[in-house]
Amino acid sequence: MPTFHDPPRFPTGFRCASRNVGLKPSARDLTLFVSDVDAAAAAVFTRNHFPGAPIVLGRETIRGGTLRAIVANSKVSNVATGARGLENARRMAAAAAAEIGTGADRVLVSSTGVIGVQLPVEKIETGIRGMAADLQTDPLVGAEGIMTTDTHPKALSTSVGASTITWVAKGSGMIEPNMATMLAYIFTDAAIAAPTLDRMLRTAVARSFNMLSVDTDTSTSDTCAILANGLAGPVDEGAFLEALVAGCVRMTEILGRDGEGAEHLLRVSVRGARDAGEAATVAKSILNSPLVKTMVHGADPNVGRLLMAVGKCFDCEIRPASTDAWINGFQVVRGGERLTFDDAVVRTALAAEVVDLEVALGVGDGSATVYGCDLTKGYIEENASYYSS
Amino acid sequence: MPTFHDPPRFPTGFRCASRNVGLKPSARDLTLFVSDVDAAAAAVFTRNHFPGAPIVLGRETIRGGTLRAIVANSKVSNVATGARGLENARRMAAAAAAEIGTGADRVLVSSTGVIGVQLPVEKIETGIRGMAADLQTDPLVGAEGIMTTDTHPKALSTSVGASTITWVAKGSGMIEPNMATMLAYIFTDAAIAAPTLDRMLRTAVARSFNMLSVDTDTSTSDTCAILANGLAGPVDEGAFLEALVAGCVRMTEILGRDGEGAEHLLRVSVRGARDAGEAATVAKSILNSPLVKTMVHGADPNVGRLLMAVGKCFDCEIRPASTDAWINGFQVVRGGERLTFDDAVVRTALAAEVVDLEVALGVGDGSATVYGCDLTKGYIEENASYYSS
Repeated sequence: MPTFHDPPRFPTGFRCASRNVGLKPSARDLTLFVSDVDAAAAAVFTRNHFPGAPIVLGRETIRGGTLRAIVANSKVSNVATGARGLENARRMAAAAAAEIGTGADRVLVSSTGVIGVQLPVEKIETGIRGMAADLQTDPLVGAEGIMTTDTHPKALSTSVGASTITWVAKGSGMIEPNMATMLAYIFTDAAIAAPTLDRMLRTAVARSFNMLSVDTDTSTSDTCAILANGLAGPVDEGAFLEALVAGCVRMTEILGRDGEGAEHLLRVSVRGARDAGEAATVAKSILNSPLVKTMVHGADPNVGRLLMAVGKCFDCEIRPASTDAWINGFQVVRGGERLTFDDAVVRTALAAEVVDLEVALGVGDGSATVYGCDLTKGYIEENASYYSS
Repeated sequence: MPTFHDPPRFPTGFRCASRNVGLKPSARDLTLFVSDVDAAAAAVFTRNHFPGAPIVLGRETIRGGTLRAIVANSKVSNVATGARGLENARRMAAAAAAEIGTGADRVLVSSTGVIGVQLPVEKIETGIRGMAADLQTDPLVGAEGIMTTDTHPKALSTSVGASTITWVAKGSGMIEPNMATMLAYIFTDAAIAAPTLDRMLRTAVARSFNMLSVDTDTSTSDTCAILANGLAGPVDEGAFLEALVAGCVRMTEILGRDGEGAEHLLRVSVRGARDAGEAATVAKSILNSPLVKTMVHGADPNVGRLLMAVGKCFDCEIRPASTDAWINGFQVVRGGERLTFDDAVVRTALAAEVVDLEVALGVGDGSATVYGCDLTKGYIEENASYYSS
């Protein structure tokens, strides 16, 4: 695990600003990330069949392999908004490009918030004017402008040789990404070409954001982009990839812990599966089981639910007699049977802020780790009135 | 839809009794269903890889195609209990057989409740003595003895020609059956051979219990059995199957409405899919989306979530431009875009006790209807301390 800077900082040549432009009553709702020079870029987007207008535009923009800026708003996601939505996303890119003096084809647009409402694009066009003068070097300022139900802004950074990598992300609900998570931006001053960046990004995302689930719901706005402006020169690619994966995993843990209503980070590791795919299937089945999530929430040592969640993976090879399980290192299942144990010990293990559930299937050598959170009344409360409040 | 009797009653020759035998503090925890004569029988069981001991024994018992009785207890499910668990299930069958004077191979055993705890079989062996004298003809008495978190006992009956069909079921959480639901027993005095019963049962279950999900969690104890004692003679098979399906669907709705913590019955119908399988996949994706379930719970007109849930069916053919959606008959999406509507109208539709969500995909002619409920704080409350309370 690399050392993360405290506080997080930007690589050379990256700055950001955020503002309230009137989409929310008073909180910051618009963020601009800018590189002083053109940056090589790669991105992955949601696989949801109803991608937002910014995703449709973003797929077109990223083909160029070069970005100067990212502009992102919260409150309205510009999804299911038809031709007018796409036109509004283009206007948002053009407004950001004009403000910093580049072409609209070098600006990635993101929107996050409620689905099916038209973007008040005039507010963004007016509000963005003069934002270039606000640009500064604290990534948390940018993170603040893209928050929705997040309880805190999210940024990380680390060093690789002479270069820096910085992650800025948001995401709390409607999270079971597939190809990327809600919104995650990665900035580096290392010199790496776009095709290499793209390959590294896909490797890192497969092991981090794509292993995250707050609520099984895949957003229509998921975007993960990486920008490399080269100002720190070349970097050792192996070391860079290792740091990239580690930071993406750490950010994934931060997103899981801040899942809507969450009180615990839940990590589920499965080993001994037929292959990595089956390990991930079993791990996600445990992670997403409402009965496992509520068991963790209540620190209730109802460990038979782990077996239920393993056993409902109908198409995986499961051998009850070779199935073992642990909670924060304490073995609770051996050979498919619940062990006799002191309930108080398991209660204490489940009460920890980070709960590690480990399952060994004894079938093959496939393994996977996935990330999420418990299920609480706070999740119900936030989501029973998200649109109205 | 057939007419259901009010109150429900048994077919000729079926009776039941229930008692407290000390598994629960005072509520009834043991039920005995008896046919006066041997009955042709068929059953389907959970596909979970960790089936309870009663399931392992039940698969053996049902091969005979003949049953005289069903004995079922609540509180402890006898799952993940190893060789001792299987031996206890056999002892439970033997005790019931001795009480009514038949062979243990004609008694189907069910257990429901917490996973991973050994069955206090001596309490059952002692408690069952004399139960034959309690046998009576109200199916609700039997339903009461198998309740766990159910808020009311569940039984239905209807007539087909000279015969009667009676359904008795329980189930409230850990419900996304696959092959059957939690525990559902069907009794009839029609004369139908076991192979025909088996075929009819599978047809009915595929359209009813297998289309139910309270919380995506597939129980380790799911059992659905049908007993036909023939005392009313032959019946028109087409009419019987039609009534069987209708009663199974109605019982599925009753189970969904009484899902743990539920305040609404949620029915999701998808049409215009590539085939019935894809229609069911899309319908389940909507039904099981925590964000759709909380939207219904809060009567929050956040209808974009319907599109999110359709769109995350990555492997289904979805054409945004031909996707329409309705809430209790009120159209909210046309051609993949959220319509402009008066929020108050949708709020009222969502506040109904039964909420019908309909989606037309415009791709083919596959359709499916699935059943479930909203997600509430009551679900969290029940499941954060199920083991401990």
